[in-house]
Amino acid sequence: MNTFTIQKRFLEIRSHKVFELFVVGIIIFSALMIGAKTYQVSESLLSIMIWFDWAITLIFLTEIIIRFLGEERKSSFFKSGWNIFDTLIVVVSLIPIDNSDLALIGRLIRIFRVLRMVSIIPELRLLLNSLITALPQLGYVVLLMFIIFYIYAAIGTTFFAQINDVLWGDISISMLTLFRVMTFEDWTDVMYETMEVYSLSWIYFITFIFFTAFAFLNMVIGIVVSVLEDENQRLKDEQNQALGLVTIQDLHVEISELKKLVQEKL
Amino acid sequence: MNTFTIQKRFLEIRSHKVFELFVVGIIIFSALMIGAKTYQVSESLLSIMIWFDWAITLIFLTEIIIRFLGEERKSSFFKSGWNIFDTLIVVVSLIPIDNSDLALIGRLIRIFRVLRMVSIIPELRLLLNSLITALPQLGYVVLLMFIIFYIYAAIGTTFFAQINDVLWGDISISMLTLFRVMTFEDWTDVMYETMEVYSLSWIYFITFIFFTAFAFLNMVIGIVVSVLEDENQRLKDEQNQALGLVTIQDLHVEISELKKLVQEKL
Amino acid sequence: MNTFTIQKRFLEIRSHKVFELFVVGIIIFSALMIGAKTYQVSESLLSIMIWFDWAITLIFLTEIIIRFLGEERKSSFFKSGWNIFDTLIVVVSLIPIDNSDLALIGRLIRIFRVLRMVSIIPELRLLLNSLITALPQLGYVVLLMFIIFYIYAAIGTTFFAQINDVLWGDISISMLTLFRVMTFEDWTDVMYETMEVYSLSWIYFITFIFFTAFAFLNMVIGIVVSVLEDENQRLKDEQNQALGLVTIQDLHVEISELKKLVQEKL
Amino acid sequence: MNTFTIQKRFLEIRSHKVFELFVVGIIIFSALMIGAKTYQVSESLLSIMIWFDWAITLIFLTEIIIRFLGEERKSSFFKSGWNIFDTLIVVVSLIPIDNSDLALIGRLIRIFRVLRMVSIIPELRLLLNSLITALPQLGYVVLLMFIIFYIYAAIGTTFFAQINDVLWGDISISMLTLFRVMTFEDWTDVMYETMEVYSLSWIYFITFIFFTAFAFLNMVIGIVVSVLEDENQRLKDEQNQALGLVTIQDLHVEISELKKLVQEKL
Repeated sequence: MNTFTIQKRFLEIRSHKVFELFVVGIIIFSALMIGAKTYQVSESLLSIMIWFDWAITLIFLTEIIIRFLGEERKSSFFKSGWNIFDTLIVVVSLIPIDNSDLALIGRLIRIFRVLRMVSIIPELRLLLNSLITALPQLGYVVLLMFIIFYIYAAIGTTFFAQINDVLWGDISISMLTLFRVMTFEDWTDVMYETMEVYSLSWIYFITFIFFTAFAFLNMVIGIVVSVLEDENQRLKDEQNQALGLVTIQDLHVEISELKKLVQEKL
Repeated sequence: MNTFTIQKRFLEIRSHKVFELFVVGIIIFSALMIGAKTYQVSESLLSIMIWFDWAITLIFLTEIIIRFLGEERKSSFFKSGWNIFDTLIVVVSLIPIDNSDLALIGRLIRIFRVLRMVSIIPELRLLLNSLITALPQLGYVVLLMFIIFYIYAAIGTTFFAQINDVLWGDISISMLTLFRVMTFEDWTDVMYETMEVYSLSWIYFITFIFFTAFAFLNMVIGIVVSVLEDENQRLKDEQNQALGLVTIQDLHVEISELKKLVQEKL
Repeated sequence: MNTFTIQKRFLEIRSHKVFELFVVGIIIFSALMIGAKTYQVSESLLSIMIWFDWAITLIFLTEIIIRFLGEERKSSFFKSGWNIFDTLIVVVSLIPIDNSDLALIGRLIRIFRVLRMVSIIPELRLLLNSLITALPQLGYVVLLMFIIFYIYAAIGTTFFAQINDVLWGDISISMLTLFRVMTFEDWTDVMYETMEVYSLSWIYFITFIFFTAFAFLNMVIGIVVSVLEDENQRLKDEQNQALGLVTIQDLHVEISELKKLVQEKL
Repeated sequence: MNTFTIQKRFLEIRSHKVFELFVVGIIIFSALMIGAKTYQVSESLLSIMIWFDWAITLIFLTEIIIRFLGEERKSSFFKSGWNIFDTLIVVVSLIPIDNSDLALIGRLIRIFRVLRMVSIIPELRLLLNSLITALPQLGYVVLLMFIIFYIYAAIGTTFFAQINDVLWGDISISMLTLFRVMTFEDWTDVMYETMEVYSLSWIYFITFIFFTAFAFLNMVIGIVVSVLEDENQRLKDEQNQALGLVTIQDLHVEISELKKLVQEKL
């Protein structure tokens, strides 16, 4: 029973608004420090920053422990992807790193602390989840787009590799060049260069732009339609149920009752 | 009672169509003068312009006084943000400015007079209000976008600062560079430069473009959905109420009445 | 009665499918000739082209006369904007032009003959009309956008005119530069140049991009909403009326009749 | 009956999940080989690749034969566009090609094998079909856009050909330049060049951008509306029929029955 009381108390701390705001504050402070480090700072300030860094790591460690102890079933704690992410970030921060190549990884880990913002604020977590759930729907459009890219890149490399090796050297470079063409970034320079050898190569570029623009449009519309549908359905259900409105089905029941009444009475 | 009559008369003037059109005309004239000043003008014309400037300021002052006197409750006049804006613009214009650094502020104030157009025309005011009310809904998407920008800027500064100090010097410059990448403005130049040192840096740019494009798309769809919903709801209510159409609820009442009638009569 | 018979016959010719297709063919031929003239052509071909040109003008003249004679009420012929446009194009083509400056106008008139395609094909005419009717709805958004442009252009000229006279010389040049910034065309070059003098000028550009993007988004959504509404309303009405479907209103009438029946019989 | 048994067995093979996955795997392998060939490969690897190439061709040939034999009615096999496409790709691959100019065509054919992905995966085939069915609806918008392009290109060639022959030499080059302007790719460079001779030529470019942007917007909205409509109709029908929900029509029938009942009984 003692462990249960402790667990309950930790759950209380964890659910407390002040605790949440404190953690958000620490994350923002951590983010500002990451930003500050990119400016030229004096030696003394840098040593203070290193101290702050350790303080933040300790606070995060304490927070993770509180959240873990506050969990009723310890095993379900690591079932949440966000919990694993949080723990990993903290644990890796704890490893002491010498000024070697690993220092870079240490800095990167500190940058990814900012992502803890998403794991703490429920609205952001919800937003990201909805983005991720929308992805599989678009899977086949993305596949189609990839096939278009692959075919055009293969054709491009076959014909243009000897014209400009930097842009069309192999299939992966060609795909990067085509992505550039899709964003309209100096795409005419790429085209004019190939047109000097193959004067009809503009067909290659114009059709590519049309195909990708069309596939992209389809993707956008796909998202709009699916989002609108979900929204409308949710809204309709809410309206009818929350407001206790009569539906056509209710009228059907009422008319049936009336029919029975007429049949019985007469 | 005398003050009341005066107030009423000022209200009449203020609400008069001619008065409104006159003020709109003066604002347009003021805007044209601002435009004209950017061209090379002769000395004599410039001195005429300065006279016109004072005349406009006086007309605006008179207008504000009329609007203020026409207000029933004087205290509620300054509760409207637009009234405060209008008064501020006029009051600052009244301060005599020598040809010093302050002259620039004087010129800016005169430019912001054009914004009075929005405060005078109700349709524009409505449009701006609807834009502002749509903003908070997008708050979390903007926050998510900012987090993406911040993390990418921190990574960018860590790796690319020694390659190009002008583009990746510190976190704020990196964010500006990333905004440039998001608008596809010569983004390949930025990428190719970093690819000379880190050949895999294209992953950094491509993922960034995908994340921001996706978040942006989500924002656009968010606006479309919310606007469509509001419109549909408004339209539906209007149709049903204005046209006096029978709803399912009304049928429910009618059937209930019929039921009662059958029960009573038999 | 003789004139009436002639008028009727001309109406028959005018409405005939072959006549319409023939005119469309002539317009396409005329368009191809305009295109062909932009290439290097031999003298002999050019003289043939001039003959063709006169032939086309004569055919168009005949066509207009047929359409005019086919009209029941001659006065209503010139009430249609498209008829006036067609007649003007043909009449101006008839004026003999020497190889002077007027020759250029003659060539332009021949180019505008292609627009006759729109006046002939009803679907294109409908499309253009729907585009034109959608414009006034967007009037205030366009006005708001113009105000944003004007204010930013005025501020831009005030601060940046001494930095780059070509881009910010006067208010109209500044507006053109801002339009360029809005299309993201080398906008960073424009920004970096001003940032050398005013290091905070990025605020000017970023806010401008946000405001115009936002206003543009609003415009797009405005069109989508209005088009969707019209479509939905039209569809709903069609469905209900064409299919003879029972509406809630019909049910209301039926229940009322039933009520009366019950009251009478008992 | 023997042939029928064979046909049935081939149909079984063809419909088997393992067979489908195997073919998809071969296509992916074939695509990877096409990609690999664009990199620098050693002689020995190249000879292995040529062997693989022949293996793939043989597998594809076997697959086509299986699918053909599995077809109940042999004549209907070539009615499907995808079947013809598949057969053509395989048959052309079989033709032995010497290292001549035809080798290039052989390579292209191998690239188009990737498109077999679309013919194999039903979801991709569906997606492509829906894209193709959406096209005719947009036909007139595309025609209108082409007319705008043609007229502007004709005007552009007339005025700007002597300024820059590379960009405005003839009508087809001008159309390519205008397409570039529409994608905002260095369009100001094109404009500034013409403005040196005709200072008002910005009107030409700004109006062109507005017209094409407007037409493009209309096209996008057209697709969105048509897709949304189809989706909504399909959803509505599904809901009502699948869930066995009562409609207003059903209520109409029920009330009529009640009416009859009251009339009979009394």
